[in-house]
Parts: sequence; C-alpha cells; structure tokens
Amino acid sequence: MQLPSQLLENAVAEFAKLPGIGKKTALRLVLHLLKKDAPEVRHFGETITKMRDEIQFCQRCFNVSDAPICAICSNTTGRNQLLICVVENIRDVIAIEATQQFNGTYHVLGGIISPLDGIGPEQLNIETLIERVKTEATTEILFALNPNIQGDTTIFYIQRKLGNLPCTVTTIARGISFGGELEYADEMTLARSIANRLPVQQYVK
Amino acid sequence: MQLPSQLLENAVAEFAKLPGIGKKTALRLVLHLLKKDAPEVRHFGETITKMRDEIQFCQRCFNVSDAPICAICSNTTGRNQLLICVVENIRDVIAIEATQQFNGTYHVLGGIISPLDGIGPEQLNIETLIERVKTEATTEILFALNPNIQGDTTIFYIQRKLGNLPCTVTTIARGISFGGELEYADEMTLARSIANRLPVQQYVK
Repeated sequence: MQLPSQLLENAVAEFAKLPGIGKKTALRLVLHLLKKDAPEVRHFGETITKMRDEIQFCQRCFNVSDAPICAICSNTTGRNQLLICVVENIRDVIAIEATQQFNGTYHVLGGIISPLDGIGPEQLNIETLIERVKTEATTEILFALNPNIQGDTTIFYIQRKLGNLPCTVTTIARGISFGGELEYADEMTLARSIANRLPVQQYVK
Repeated sequence: MQLPSQLLENAVAEFAKLPGIGKKTALRLVLHLLKKDAPEVRHFGETITKMRDEIQFCQRCFNVSDAPICAICSNTTGRNQLLICVVENIRDVIAIEATQQFNGTYHVLGGIISPLDGIGPEQLNIETLIERVKTEATTEILFALNPNIQGDTTIFYIQRKLGNLPCTVTTIARGISFGGELEYADEMTLARSIANRLPVQQYVK
C-alpha cells in the first residue's frame, strides 16, 4: 500500500506499531484524525506524551500513580495496609479493583519468573516485597498470579524467600469459573477443584 | 472501570475516541505505550500531531500531499494529465493506486451529494472540477464513485454541470466481482451486468 504523503505514511507506521493494529486499521485511524481539527489532534498527541512523561509508579507497591505514593497505599483508613495482594502487572490491579471485593493493598511484580523468556527474580519487584513484609509487619500475602507453571514458580520462590516470617500466605482459589460448564473444564482445573473442595457452609458464606 | 491514575485515564479516553476502539482496547494500547521508553512515546505523539499540522491538500486535485501540488499532479511525463478520475475521498485514491492500473490524475470531491446527511454540491469540490475541465482541456472524466443512489446523483449532477464540454464521461464498470458467485449476486448487480454485457474479445483484451 503506497500512500500519497510521507507524513501520512509516518503516522500510519506509528499506529501500526501498536499491538493488534495492522496497516489498514492504522490508515483508518489516521484518516479519522485527519478529519478532526488540528487542535484536537494536538491534544491527542500531547495527552499520550504527557501520560508517559509524567506518570509515576508508587514507591511502595509499584502500581501506576499520579503521586509518589498511590491512592491505595495512602488510604490508611479504608484499606487494610497489612494485607498485600501480589500481582504480575497493572492490568491485574485494575481487574481486581473492578470487583470491588478487595480492601487490601497491592504489590506489582512487573512480570513473572520465566527462565525461558530470560526473566529471573532479580528483574522483578521481589526484594522490595520481602523488605515490605519485614518492615511493615504484614499479616497476609495473597498471591493473585495466573495459574500456570511460571505463576506457581514465582509463588514458590517468594514463599521460600519469605522464610519463617510470621505472615499468612494465601492464593486466589482456582476452580471452575462462575457460569462455566463442568464438562468443558480441562482436567487439571477439574482435578484441582475436587482436591480443594470447600465445605458448603463456607462456599455460600 | 476505574483506573489508578488520572493521566492513564485521560490517555485511555483519547484512544477510545478513535473509531472501532473501545475502552478495553484503549487501555491495552495505553499500557503498551507505558512499557515503551518515553522518547519513543513522544515520537508517537509528535508524528501524529505533525501529520495533522503539516499535511497539505493538493490545490489541483485535493488529494493529501506533502507539497502544494501532489506527486501525481506534478508527474507530467508518467501520468496522463488530461484524464481525471473523480473519487469521493482519499481512501478511494489509495485503493485505485494500489491496483497500479490507472495512469491518469484524480479529483477528490471530499464527499458525495447526500441531501439526507445535509451534504449539497456546494460543500464538495465540484466547482473546481468544472473549472479544471474547462481550463485544462481534459479529454476524459472517469467517475469512480460507490454504486449507490448518492453516487449516481453526484454523477448526474456533475454531468449536467459539465454541459456540452468536449470531454468523454465514463464510469467504472459495475458487475459481478472477480471471484464472486453468480447465484449470490444481488438482482440489481446481476441485471446491470447483463444490460452492460461486453463482447468476449473486449473482455479478455
């Protein structure tokens, strides 16, 4: 596809770098912006640039934040600061916050231990987590990592690092999804959901 | 969906304004940019803004251009300057150029006559087309408009405006698409393709 203008071509190339956006979609987006007023497009560009330039990461939990300490970490009355939910990335924080069922704090690892991808523990925010648990007298660590080998490896590694610190370590329940159908569940999930069966009283609580 | 940062929220809102991009996709794109280096994101924003600020429209054919006269209009040796292909928008120019089968010039109307949408002839680049045909001694006008009521209305209007200027007026062939199946073609298309049947010699030329 040859475009009649180099400026257009450059803009399309930039959009096409984004995940899930091909050259045709990129062209559609650029032609849409071309129809908008110049100040509006300038505002678009500036908002994106400003976001990347000025966004901060909470010094305590590494969540994105507009201040050195994020809104969740600085909310000492509404959130249980002694409960830490360990997640892989910011997207997981957003997903858990959307449930409105968790009132503790987070710790964003920034990835997951995955030797095949060359990601070791030292590249993740694990040291800071251990330090946090030690100094803040955390009572519970809740692992909310994806249920796969890398997730389990990361949980295992951190648990060993924690040694015998006096804090409960839990993980989110794995089982059949709400609305899911038993017969289509994979064997691993079904097997685990049987092994970790719950008393009905606890389930309906 | 509540986001942990206003800057993030603003950037997501900007992306979500684009056609076909919802809030979830916008968040995915923004988080992708968040992982990139700041200069790279700045380059993204600046490229888009620069495109909108500096792009020009060819003064002769209204195609997008990096100069006052576009590359096609200024190519007097390789392109037939006396043949004008009339199209609705820039996207159509790109589509026709991609076929590499057209060696004339274009005239971008910037829309199509559509009273229901409040678009009349005076909002389109029709006056300039008539002027061009008069002053440049154009030999042929080829209409490449979408085959619908608005397209036909526009062709009819322009043809009447042209009066009896000594220039051939043609339109792209309407018929069964290459690779299409006869039995699934709509009646209108099939009827037209029978009415406008071609001698086989001409077809295989």
